[in-house]
Amino acid sequence: MKIEYGFRTIIPTPYAQAIPLVTDALKTEGFGVLTEIDVQATMKKKLDVDVQPYIILGACNPKLAYRGLQAEPELGLLLPCNVIVYDNGDETSTVSIVDPLQMIGFVGNPDLQPVADEANSRLRQVLASLSEPMPA
Amino acid sequence: MKIEYGFRTIIPTPYAQAIPLVTDALKTEGFGVLTEIDVQATMKKKLDVDVQPYIILGACNPKLAYRGLQAEPELGLLLPCNVIVYDNGDETSTVSIVDPLQMIGFVGNPDLQPVADEANSRLRQVLASLSEPMPA
Repeated sequence: MKIEYGFRTIIPTPYAQAIPLVTDALKTEGFGVLTEIDVQATMKKKLDVDVQPYIILGACNPKLAYRGLQAEPELGLLLPCNVIVYDNGDETSTVSIVDPLQMIGFVGNPDLQPVADEANSRLRQVLASLSEPMPA
Repeated sequence: MKIEYGFRTIIPTPYAQAIPLVTDALKTEGFGVLTEIDVQATMKKKLDVDVQPYIILGACNPKLAYRGLQAEPELGLLLPCNVIVYDNGDETSTVSIVDPLQMIGFVGNPDLQPVADEANSRLRQVLASLSEPMPA
């Protein structure tokens, strides 16, 4: 499934189990999770409103980030790569990953292209691995 | 100073003091800092390479984030608003803030426009307040 600024899938996994599954899939492609924002808890605490379980994971592949920052010092404005997981309310979860090609599309620095290409390829692999039928 | 995906300024403040100054300026405009990535420490730890002192602050105005997420559930892919501070090596620091109008420009959801306009206005005010001559 394609949205303009990311790609997403729905997995047959309840929210609480989906988070470690996504984290492990990211790790396989060399992305560590540097930040976590629990959107539901933050909204409850700050505004006393109820939203569905929703987390923003900030994923970073250090080698790619380093290459990117060498080419474009302001690239930190677009890092880390966000991955969101939210509860669909029916024992399934949505997982969306930001599209690095879209994100660097408006930076206008051709030196970033190979870095974004590799990030894109690895993040698509993450989503593909989550979408595969799980072994019985 | 304008870059394609953000706006930036150089302030006559050493890096270590610049971080709380930026954090306070964000707070004045209703943005809390939800995440901090110490790029220098992360690069040293993960790759054993040396980069200049550099931090990525994830700033979030909860009311604006809530309105944005109501309009566009996948908006978490573009949140929080990144603010970077790095050491120029001469007792000055660079502060750059991501441009919310650019970020939502490719989402293609007109309901987000007023939210992005307000975020843009507030973040520009943050940068303006940092760029003003400080009281003696």
